[in-house]
Amino acid sequence: MTTYADVLAAAGRIHGHVLRTPVLEISPGLFFKLELLQHSGSFKVRGAFNRILSAGQVPDSGVIAASGGNHGLAVAFAARALGVRAEIFVPEVTSPVKVSGLAALGAHVTQTGAIYAEAAEAAAKRAAESGALSVHAYDQPEVIAGQGTTGLELMEQTGGVDTVVVAVGGGGFGAGITVGTSGGASSGGPRIVAVEPERIPTLRRALEAGRPVPVEVSGVGADALGATRIGGLAFEILSGPRVESVLVSDEAIMEARHTLWERHRVAAEPAGSAAYAALLSGVYTPAPGERVAVVVCGSNTDPATL
Amino acid sequence: MTTYADVLAAAGRIHGHVLRTPVLEISPGLFFKLELLQHSGSFKVRGAFNRILSAGQVPDSGVIAASGGNHGLAVAFAARALGVRAEIFVPEVTSPVKVSGLAALGAHVTQTGAIYAEAAEAAAKRAAESGALSVHAYDQPEVIAGQGTTGLELMEQTGGVDTVVVAVGGGGFGAGITVGTSGGASSGGPRIVAVEPERIPTLRRALEAGRPVPVEVSGVGADALGATRIGGLAFEILSGPRVESVLVSDEAIMEARHTLWERHRVAAEPAGSAAYAALLSGVYTPAPGERVAVVVCGSNTDPATL
Repeated sequence: MTTYADVLAAAGRIHGHVLRTPVLEISPGLFFKLELLQHSGSFKVRGAFNRILSAGQVPDSGVIAASGGNHGLAVAFAARALGVRAEIFVPEVTSPVKVSGLAALGAHVTQTGAIYAEAAEAAAKRAAESGALSVHAYDQPEVIAGQGTTGLELMEQTGGVDTVVVAVGGGGFGAGITVGTSGGASSGGPRIVAVEPERIPTLRRALEAGRPVPVEVSGVGADALGATRIGGLAFEILSGPRVESVLVSDEAIMEARHTLWERHRVAAEPAGSAAYAALLSGVYTPAPGERVAVVVCGSNTDPATL
Repeated sequence: MTTYADVLAAAGRIHGHVLRTPVLEISPGLFFKLELLQHSGSFKVRGAFNRILSAGQVPDSGVIAASGGNHGLAVAFAARALGVRAEIFVPEVTSPVKVSGLAALGAHVTQTGAIYAEAAEAAAKRAAESGALSVHAYDQPEVIAGQGTTGLELMEQTGGVDTVVVAVGGGGFGAGITVGTSGGASSGGPRIVAVEPERIPTLRRALEAGRPVPVEVSGVGADALGATRIGGLAFEILSGPRVESVLVSDEAIMEARHTLWERHRVAAEPAGSAAYAALLSGVYTPAPGERVAVVVCGSNTDPATL
């Protein structure tokens, strides 16, 4: 299982490659961790850099990933920064805007398969042939440790909080933050409120079943939180006692996104607004005096839709 | 002249009413002070709160201001927070986003005059009739001291910089930051790069003339930097030896605004992008190793235009 030491090592490894994203205290004891201002527009570069830099020698065939979204952008960004080749597989439905965004970062884009799972399968096959280093969107220890550096930072920047509210899709980010905020204590650290859209409850269903199980994926968070099941490594961590699972409606997510812009001038994508939706809609209500950090984690969005 | 002690006093007075806006180090030694995340979408609330809170008793007729937008929003925000009436005069060029924002904050809005100066004249006439407390957009000591708290914060948050790059319109913000970053030394503190749109060179013309003189106002920054002359109090400070005046084209401002969104996911208004434009367009080029803070100061914009 990913440890606090792994997160610290990741922080050392990716230092200088990623931004220390700022924290904004919007009211006494309520903090936004503005991870949406990260390079490539989401936290995903932390895991991508840590995975690639942990590999020692990157093969001549470079790195490979499947994703038309934040993960693909992050891997392409990290590969360009490190001077290695990136091959990104995306399904045929991927919008031309996203494909051209990946290409602008210098990635070789292969558009194949009707849905994400088929693109991922093609990427796996290609990786087996080419020997390229595969960077998973969430279910690799180095990826979880990299994402966990967000948790390290926010504990330092806030001086500590009682609760961290974070969106969960495949679970790599939530799991990393759970470890990264633990301070190394086996049972210590803040409560982790793991927020999922009602229409993509990968953690909730896994907690009910006692193991990762497939779920139907739909709704406004699908492009960034649309894993069909929680990652096995993430589930080991997110099924622990510090984690509380909550669900939010698509309406609550869109309302939170609107409020983030209107009131706070933070331009987030729907998935990046899910954590705040848990507070605004009241599915998680802090106690008086409770210190809460909300991680606003992605901004790859069309601002015209704000 | 506004002193460092005045800025410290302002910081104490407005504490808890304004946000401590975050700083983002986007590359080693290059900092964004994200003042555009401030309440009401710009730094202007700092001066507004300081002016109103310095007044002791606010008349029943409340507070009154004339503004191209951001100052009006700020005064309306502060008045609502403090439970006093706000009457705001704005010129006809004011963007619909800002006018509807004023109404949403409960202010009484009068839209009159082609340019700021005409709205200001109407407001002054009204203030003389009603006895309301006038909050000037830039040329009052309490306003300059309030804006200066941004400078205090950024010096603390960055651990000190060599240079602060800031947009200048009426000059209250630039003057406040000049004092607020001085650390109280009579000649100390970072270089202040005072950035103006080529089409609104109020400081540049005043420096050439040796006193505030009227200028023609036009271009993309006119709604927020469209003072027709630099404030007299601001000019006393901005004509000092630490301040360097530079001009940027409207094209450079819009390019900087685009880059702020595309590369950094910061959604700024044109005036809020002017300071960064000075760096991106090369009209100010830092020396190797120079530590530079760019103040991104306003976000009252239609995101669809990003």
